[in-house]
Amino acid sequence: MSNYRETTENRTIIRIDSDGRKEENDLIIREHALTITLSDGKFVKDRRYVTIFCSPSDIEQLGVGFLLSDDIISSIEDIYDMSISDDGSEIKFLLSSNANLAETLMSKRDITSGCSRNLNPYEFLQNLKIDKLSSNIKVKAETIIQLSNQFQSISSLYKSTGGTHASALCDPDGILIFKEDIGRHNAIDKIFGECLLKGIKVEDKMILTSGRISSEILLKVAKRYIPIIISRSAPTSMAIEFADQAGITIVGFARGRRMNVYSHEYRIE
Amino acid sequence: MSNYRETTENRTIIRIDSDGRKEENDLIIREHALTITLSDGKFVKDRRYVTIFCSPSDIEQLGVGFLLSDDIISSIEDIYDMSISDDGSEIKFLLSSNANLAETLMSKRDITSGCSRNLNPYEFLQNLKIDKLSSNIKVKAETIIQLSNQFQSISSLYKSTGGTHASALCDPDGILIFKEDIGRHNAIDKIFGECLLKGIKVEDKMILTSGRISSEILLKVAKRYIPIIISRSAPTSMAIEFADQAGITIVGFARGRRMNVYSHEYRIE
Repeated sequence: MSNYRETTENRTIIRIDSDGRKEENDLIIREHALTITLSDGKFVKDRRYVTIFCSPSDIEQLGVGFLLSDDIISSIEDIYDMSISDDGSEIKFLLSSNANLAETLMSKRDITSGCSRNLNPYEFLQNLKIDKLSSNIKVKAETIIQLSNQFQSISSLYKSTGGTHASALCDPDGILIFKEDIGRHNAIDKIFGECLLKGIKVEDKMILTSGRISSEILLKVAKRYIPIIISRSAPTSMAIEFADQAGITIVGFARGRRMNVYSHEYRIE
Repeated sequence: MSNYRETTENRTIIRIDSDGRKEENDLIIREHALTITLSDGKFVKDRRYVTIFCSPSDIEQLGVGFLLSDDIISSIEDIYDMSISDDGSEIKFLLSSNANLAETLMSKRDITSGCSRNLNPYEFLQNLKIDKLSSNIKVKAETIIQLSNQFQSISSLYKSTGGTHASALCDPDGILIFKEDIGRHNAIDKIFGECLLKGIKVEDKMILTSGRISSEILLKVAKRYIPIIISRSAPTSMAIEFADQAGITIVGFARGRRMNVYSHEYRIE
């Protein structure tokens, strides 16, 4: 059996082009179903919380990051233990009593009628009560150009299979953490999970992402108090609106030697 | 007030390039929060079902298509009435008693522990009990090349803002319906919604999509018994696996004069 953490697999496909039709070996991007199960050793036992469709790399980081983004945990102390099933399809978390799991699950149910799909981003932003970020961090445009180019050159998986998104945590000196996933959200959660596991501070850093900056991506970054988000792609209107309110700088279309700044431009020198 | 159905808006941004830094007017892709509310005139009253982040075009089609994909309705007769709020943020459905809304919501809760996020695709495929598609439809490779090129040339919104996905319903003679959205899933739901509203049969047609074919996209198409799905991008391993089982032909990387066929190649001549 192959290693379940492989993010690609070989498969025979039929290639049709002007030379005709032939069988070929092709590299396919793997999609993995990861179920997160939660226990608190007391009231909640092996409760299936969510199934995430992901690239099967950095499963621990993804699990931890997802719980952080989803407000199930707020610090590494909330995790008492975690374990991954042999085939990688399940990650079990035993949370410490500090995490108040039963209470958190209950309050989530109240807010969202039992399903988090019901929370719209405006309510979310209000519930969040984030103080407007007043970080004085400033970055040179030249630095952003360098980071964006560096980011592009290490997106190797993307180049080989054409199907993944990449995200990176960086500071002005370079890229610190780089993650890829078939989902934009997962790639960022993997970063936050790794930072929580390794005790890396994120609120003085920047996030780079290959994908569009939607309201959900912006909120994920806002919740971690990150002052600057950079993409090679476009932000949506709602992401810009939220960034205005939350005090976050959005840089989009950072390609080659150009970029667009959509909010709080004073941070880009 | 501008028309809420506009999919783009103008905004002043700061553009930085080798010529320096200047204010510019830019076209931003709009992201819209659409809440679907359900009633059955009896047991369920104005129940908030979901909030979808979408491009605000084809809101009716999106609402109807979402309910179809989510198994809340199965035919147009299930919808007794629908109305959209003045600002387009809410679409209300009054379902007919045939739709058994209360029962459907209850059974969804049972299957998914109150949250559809808990259903993994393997269970989903089992629950679905779709007969393996035995459609004898065949399509010439040349036709796929033409459709893919036509699809590319009408993806106009994509060209102007770089942030949307497109999907189309087509038959061998050309593209019948074309929809765009910031979400891959939404673009396909808009197509299915329009087909339901207009009484257009889909099970003898093909779906074209600009984005990656993930398991969720594949299942959405499988539930409508569509025999062929074509993308300019890559399918994931899980999508190919499901397509093998469900009898669906996946064509990927359909660009220029080439394509890859990942499953049930006999339909491509």
